[in-house]
Amino acid sequence: MDIKAAIYDRKQYIDDALDRYLERKDGVPDKIYQGMRYSVFAGGKRLRPILAVGGCELCGGRIEDVLPVACAIELIHTYSLVHDDLPALDNDDYRRGKLTSHKVFGEALAILAGDALLNTAYEIMLETLDKGERYLRAVKLIARSAGVQGMIGGQVIDLEYENKETGLAILKEMHAKKTGALINASILSGALIGGCSQEEYGHLREFGSRLGLAFQIRDDILDVIGDEDVMGKKTGSDAANKKSTYVTVMGLGKSKEMVRILAGEAKGYLKPFAGRAEFFVQLTDYLVNREY
Amino acid sequence: MDIKAAIYDRKQYIDDALDRYLERKDGVPDKIYQGMRYSVFAGGKRLRPILAVGGCELCGGRIEDVLPVACAIELIHTYSLVHDDLPALDNDDYRRGKLTSHKVFGEALAILAGDALLNTAYEIMLETLDKGERYLRAVKLIARSAGVQGMIGGQVIDLEYENKETGLAILKEMHAKKTGALINASILSGALIGGCSQEEYGHLREFGSRLGLAFQIRDDILDVIGDEDVMGKKTGSDAANKKSTYVTVMGLGKSKEMVRILAGEAKGYLKPFAGRAEFFVQLTDYLVNREY
Repeated sequence: MDIKAAIYDRKQYIDDALDRYLERKDGVPDKIYQGMRYSVFAGGKRLRPILAVGGCELCGGRIEDVLPVACAIELIHTYSLVHDDLPALDNDDYRRGKLTSHKVFGEALAILAGDALLNTAYEIMLETLDKGERYLRAVKLIARSAGVQGMIGGQVIDLEYENKETGLAILKEMHAKKTGALINASILSGALIGGCSQEEYGHLREFGSRLGLAFQIRDDILDVIGDEDVMGKKTGSDAANKKSTYVTVMGLGKSKEMVRILAGEAKGYLKPFAGRAEFFVQLTDYLVNREY
Repeated sequence: MDIKAAIYDRKQYIDDALDRYLERKDGVPDKIYQGMRYSVFAGGKRLRPILAVGGCELCGGRIEDVLPVACAIELIHTYSLVHDDLPALDNDDYRRGKLTSHKVFGEALAILAGDALLNTAYEIMLETLDKGERYLRAVKLIARSAGVQGMIGGQVIDLEYENKETGLAILKEMHAKKTGALINASILSGALIGGCSQEEYGHLREFGSRLGLAFQIRDDILDVIGDEDVMGKKTGSDAANKKSTYVTVMGLGKSKEMVRILAGEAKGYLKPFAGRAEFFVQLTDYLVNREY
């Protein structure tokens, strides 16, 4: 399997579908679509929808089955970035080498565009719910992972420990909620829609929690050793913001080793799927070795 | 019927249910509940959930049937106020006589608390969807009314015409979306859950659009003639912000007459329901004559 081509294929499907879901509608002010589309098409890796597609395919489903939910997850992820970038939160001017939403459209529209992305995600997901119980389980899982028990909870923890040193336990909890929950929900919602068994669900949940954590630690590592041109954003921002990260808490060497261990554990949970899991196995290696 | 007692009764049910839905959960940072609860329990009239309950009861349902959806609507309404009050939008320090969320908790938490209210609304509504097709139709309608085709679209129009004079047509479109859509969705989602016929749905849609508009014009009138102590907020703020309102566009006399005409039309659409619509008939009179 050429993993880059496999990722690219799925990304194309997802980008086309996102483009359709964000088509302008009559009677809706154009400005809100400009705001939503700007951030959605600002060079995202589409990690979460790719994971949803992968989870669905792994469990016997087709990409078409999961595409609406996969796109909705990407909209939820994007809204969280738009709001996180605001001056009152992380105050970031650039993301992926492009100006952030509020720098282009002003804060008011950035807030509303974020709100619109979240609401649109639910509008899209609600349209799948006449296709049966699998979808309802998937959508409920995503909602929980995006909310106060998941992503938003993590954002609040992040806010509370701003400019404070944190230990490993709080760092783990924060990331498990802020990024881990939605990453895991991506895989598992795909698996549910693909028709996974309860046992498969359990394996993928363990896989996803390791992958999510490894991904986050790699992020922290790249903020220290990454190439700004490759990454499209300033590195060293965590240190500049006095942010506790895995690297500041555990050191660079230990962080790299932890990524390696977590990736190994993650792939271990894919063993029961044998050859069917080839995409996820290679995706794991690709993600933990990425340079951006 | 003692309309004040009837409203009070329903409001008690709704407040109790909101309190349960916003109960603190283990593993969720307390701060986010503080933010959410502060704004939800800051003296709201509960108009939208009361309309949802009224619509459900009118069509033969019980209050318990509609309570989760009614509460979710109130959370959506509250999130929109929290974000609207932010410095980048309306920059309001007070609402209903209390400090706004960002004045109490800071902008960052106010943004996240708004996000959390919207997401929680969907978490609550998703839990109703195993109760059948009626609920799915109701929730889809609410989602559309809250999104770019409804409330958020209206907020964007409001933003675009800030400090600009607008004519009656744009003012109507803005309000129909910004407040009218969710008010109408409240009535209609209740009616759907209560088991309305297609014909009843049509009558209530016309009723709702008149009621929503009359309610809004009354709001504009109160901003000119209202008593600050009764209203718990500064009056004259529209004029101070050079905002176009029904009063600035049509004058006070014409505005009052339009409220009277709309209320009459609204009640006309209730005639087919005869005595069953007594609550909505009296509620209409109550709302268009309110002093706050």
